[in-house]
Amino acid sequence: MGATWELARFLTASRWDDVPRAMRHEAKRAILNWLGCALGGCRDETVERAFAALGEFSGPPRATLIGRRERVDPLLAAAVNALSSNILDYDDTHLQTVIHPSVPVAAAVFAAAEYSSASGAQLLHAFILGVEAECRIGSAVPGHYAAGWHITATCGVFGAAAACGRLLGLNAQQMTWALGIAATQSSGLTAMMGSMCKSYNMAHAARSGFAAARLAAKNFTSSEQGIEAPRGFAHVLATNPRLEAITGGLGETWALAGNAYKPFPCGIVLHPVIDGCIELRNEHHLLPAMIERIDVRSNPLALDLAGKKSPTTGLEGKLSVYHAAAVALIFGKAGVREFTDDCVRDPDVIALRQRVVPHADANVGAIEADVAITLKDGRRLEKRVLNAIGTLERPMSDADLETKFLELAAASHSNREAREMIELAWRLDTLPDAGELLRATAQQRVVAA
Amino acid sequence: MGATWELARFLTASRWDDVPRAMRHEAKRAILNWLGCALGGCRDETVERAFAALGEFSGPPRATLIGRRERVDPLLAAAVNALSSNILDYDDTHLQTVIHPSVPVAAAVFAAAEYSSASGAQLLHAFILGVEAECRIGSAVPGHYAAGWHITATCGVFGAAAACGRLLGLNAQQMTWALGIAATQSSGLTAMMGSMCKSYNMAHAARSGFAAARLAAKNFTSSEQGIEAPRGFAHVLATNPRLEAITGGLGETWALAGNAYKPFPCGIVLHPVIDGCIELRNEHHLLPAMIERIDVRSNPLALDLAGKKSPTTGLEGKLSVYHAAAVALIFGKAGVREFTDDCVRDPDVIALRQRVVPHADANVGAIEADVAITLKDGRRLEKRVLNAIGTLERPMSDADLETKFLELAAASHSNREAREMIELAWRLDTLPDAGELLRATAQQRVVAA
Repeated sequence: MGATWELARFLTASRWDDVPRAMRHEAKRAILNWLGCALGGCRDETVERAFAALGEFSGPPRATLIGRRERVDPLLAAAVNALSSNILDYDDTHLQTVIHPSVPVAAAVFAAAEYSSASGAQLLHAFILGVEAECRIGSAVPGHYAAGWHITATCGVFGAAAACGRLLGLNAQQMTWALGIAATQSSGLTAMMGSMCKSYNMAHAARSGFAAARLAAKNFTSSEQGIEAPRGFAHVLATNPRLEAITGGLGETWALAGNAYKPFPCGIVLHPVIDGCIELRNEHHLLPAMIERIDVRSNPLALDLAGKKSPTTGLEGKLSVYHAAAVALIFGKAGVREFTDDCVRDPDVIALRQRVVPHADANVGAIEADVAITLKDGRRLEKRVLNAIGTLERPMSDADLETKFLELAAASHSNREAREMIELAWRLDTLPDAGELLRATAQQRVVAA
Repeated sequence: MGATWELARFLTASRWDDVPRAMRHEAKRAILNWLGCALGGCRDETVERAFAALGEFSGPPRATLIGRRERVDPLLAAAVNALSSNILDYDDTHLQTVIHPSVPVAAAVFAAAEYSSASGAQLLHAFILGVEAECRIGSAVPGHYAAGWHITATCGVFGAAAACGRLLGLNAQQMTWALGIAATQSSGLTAMMGSMCKSYNMAHAARSGFAAARLAAKNFTSSEQGIEAPRGFAHVLATNPRLEAITGGLGETWALAGNAYKPFPCGIVLHPVIDGCIELRNEHHLLPAMIERIDVRSNPLALDLAGKKSPTTGLEGKLSVYHAAAVALIFGKAGVREFTDDCVRDPDVIALRQRVVPHADANVGAIEADVAITLKDGRRLEKRVLNAIGTLERPMSDADLETKFLELAAASHSNREAREMIELAWRLDTLPDAGELLRATAQQRVVAA
């Protein structure tokens, strides 16, 4: 039995009781984090333009767009919600594969849940299985990302198909077809980074995954070895795949256990710098005027990725260790607001940025940093950050995730409304109608039929 | 200026008067052939299942499905018409790349034409340009098809985007985005051959191409080097691309000049085998009972693509040199009926199939074959086929294409109706409303607003 069949059997045979309690909770954390990201991104120009282009082709409006008033067909909803939730670069990361697992899977599976009137528990189960398929397939293709494949999209389409297929009640045979239809739609190039297509890759994956599940449900056939066939996904989009990563320990290990959440909406290599600066600021009650100089020792890769000295836009700010250290020391945080164009052009931020001196040091790990602050009174304060907040060793707590959500929701919703959404997310497994959570964000509390 | 920009400039600057008269006529031949294929395939189970899966998500019905009464949104129409027109494996072939150029491009551009109320001449011009983009990009990626990429889909998405972008009036900047959005959606695996996904690859490409054009029209950005960037299409989906094939002689040479039309509804690599068998049968009045053994010498690629020894469905029969040789010898033809499930399961066909012995020989060209038949009386009959009917050296005439169209239309339309469609196709360049041709097949003569 090939990897596609074996995976399909697992996806269709899994029972909710088989999923460890910790993973059920982790799934709710992932959904809460994802929903916040989507709320924060849903009015971005990227979403507006995509909607202007494709909205008029929507079928009957049975699905919710997070944070927006329009309702659309589930295929388009899967695409738009994926777009919204990826734009801020604030989404979760499966550290082993660097896949952002929730974006394509959650966007697709919520559309399928609203379509099929699934319960919260059914949705969570399907989501967990989708993430499992997605990350295992990603683990099976070493070198794939480096070769130019945008792995969250190329593997996300499998996760979306698996999750939607589960909710649509596919049998194992149909699930092999869904995975095959996903395989033949797998696409997304990293050349698109820096353009709107970076997030469109995820949108396309989410939509294509939902379509794959629907087609399979109507017995639309594909290869039954879509993953492992000689001209299938793993051999065409990668070299020397490790197919055992797909099937080894199915039901015993869970991809969500390796999922991390970003405390700061910028490249993960800057997180230890921000973390160290915030800690020093709080421990020593630092004010910008007290600071003479900030020495940051980072891995050369980190400075290579994020060494922009004089950023002029929010987007460039996300690639600047100078900016990251400055805002962390001035504001004691580095959230969405701290990576806006306005904040990047703030004279106080610019002034402190110029006091940051980065040092590349190969002895410092890629997600570690040494921060040393010299004060005008001559004191020198040091902080070595080995495990930044948000790593698996120091994960964001449930309360941290709530704070992040509240900040992301603040632009469009009152604190009370946002807290209601958080409360809904934590009891998603008990909701008779999973769609209730999304509709709360759209302020359209339609009662499902 | 990179290949993407250079191509985009050509696509947006081309004038109808720049297109040679012969190419305008060739475009009409391609459209007539494509339309017949779609008419023949539009009631196939593949289409029915796809429509059952996705039809309910259609937006406002502004586009025609060839040969069907339903009307759907243009994105879905592009997909379904591509599916219909590819199913029978009777579509055209750009011999240099083995792309079936019309399927994704015509399906998408007719949807765009109905959407934008384009004239027949505008449609033909956009179609010609789309085919040009598609085939030039295909020419730039040697080894791509053999590596497992279904080239009609992976390059068809560019053709569809280019053709639709032209009809939607994109400027050069927007056209670079459309090509980039196409690049990042480029997908389709040859592992799907033999399943319904073989044709779905084209459907997905046609739909994705239309979407790319619409997104670009709303200034949804992508990389402007979607084709040639280090992590763009040509380097990620191929090795050692020849980018000069995309831009060399633009406006001087035309891909449609290298387009061939199939006399038999199966892989082109089988055509010389069928042609040779029919000729031997007719020359020697062969009956199946006389035949001891059939030796077929073909290019290794041909046997790789069409080496299925014991097909059980019509679809598999199209990938079987055994089946192709057997039906050609038994029936003296290989039309739509000879590739049905019934025919593949015919005991007489199965019996003769078992006498076919293929030999891979790299000295035989991809669309050549040596057929040697050993009779039970000991005689050995040989035929070397260098130019099968339907090749550029022995092209199907306009009259041949009409006959083929009439055969394909016969299942659903009267001869008189089919002849009216042929007549419309030949004067497509004079129609004020390109959609009239499609609507004639759907028997829905809606007058456009």
